[in-house]
Amino acid sequence: MVHRKVDLPVHGARAYLEPGPVLLVTSCHEGERNVMTLGWHTIVEFNPSLVACVISGGNHSFDLIRGSGECVLNVPTLELIDTVVAIGNRSGREHDKFTELDLAIGDAEKVAAPLLTACHANFECRLADARMVDDYNLFLFEIVKAHVASRPKHPKTLHYTGDGVFVVAGKVVSRRGDFQPALLGNGR
Amino acid sequence: MVHRKVDLPVHGARAYLEPGPVLLVTSCHEGERNVMTLGWHTIVEFNPSLVACVISGGNHSFDLIRGSGECVLNVPTLELIDTVVAIGNRSGREHDKFTELDLAIGDAEKVAAPLLTACHANFECRLADARMVDDYNLFLFEIVKAHVASRPKHPKTLHYTGDGVFVVAGKVVSRRGDFQPALLGNGR
Repeated sequence: MVHRKVDLPVHGARAYLEPGPVLLVTSCHEGERNVMTLGWHTIVEFNPSLVACVISGGNHSFDLIRGSGECVLNVPTLELIDTVVAIGNRSGREHDKFTELDLAIGDAEKVAAPLLTACHANFECRLADARMVDDYNLFLFEIVKAHVASRPKHPKTLHYTGDGVFVVAGKVVSRRGDFQPALLGNGR
Repeated sequence: MVHRKVDLPVHGARAYLEPGPVLLVTSCHEGERNVMTLGWHTIVEFNPSLVACVISGGNHSFDLIRGSGECVLNVPTLELIDTVVAIGNRSGREHDKFTELDLAIGDAEKVAAPLLTACHANFECRLADARMVDDYNLFLFEIVKAHVASRPKHPKTLHYTGDGVFVVAGKVVSRRGDFQPALLGNGR
């Protein structure tokens, strides 16, 4: 069960993406939709809220995302691990994963791709810079709308190491008292 | 204590970087050296072994890394959290962090920047593409040499959420049996 989603300022996506969890990326283009797993991403800037994602050209989603210039980055948690593995192990070329896996979806506000409502957070993205796509499959997206479950504050996320093995980020350790005030909030 | 380091094929860096841990980045240029924390990075390719890192232009390390075209990405573990916080909260402009924090260092093989020997893994990097540095502070590095502690296989790593709070990746969950063979190893 996912707690009610609330809007989050888009720069707040950092709290969910910087730890490096596996994401589920939804896309939609010319009536076709897909969802894929993604472990290769990084925050790039707070304002505008930019994130870089490496999406292999071999993925069916590559064409949908490049064609539409949009996607949603959904953050799954530990209880969705079987769904994550199932999504990562079948191709949208041969499978309608939404139907086969009975994925609950909702409408995004600013993009056509669906939100995966069972995920802890959903970040609607528009392609901001395609300069590195041809050479490196690297898409630079701007997060234009952020939705996040009201709790827990720090969900248990899945982090992929390759070879079918995930590590789970769970234990929370605060060292807030040891930080310079200027480096808290969105400081770097 | 860190177990003896062994060489790792450079594409194997994925197992340590893809989960998204905070890194300690060492650099050296024209006799000056520094170390900084970095949470904004992603694997980009296996072969060559490419990693993208976002290093703010405000960091002292930015100039050393851009000037030398080299750095080392060191992977600290939970027991180094106080060192990580101390490194992240002082600037190399005013501090020699290696001396002040009594950091153990070793020689890299292919770059001038030092290895942090207390870290679980060390990845020697050369700048491969600087095209996105001016606009986004995004450096594309090639990992040219990889060193990793022989055990544990999955160390407890620190993942930064902002605001002084880390989550620790510890629990290991294998779903290897549910993966297509073609997606294991370095499959994506």
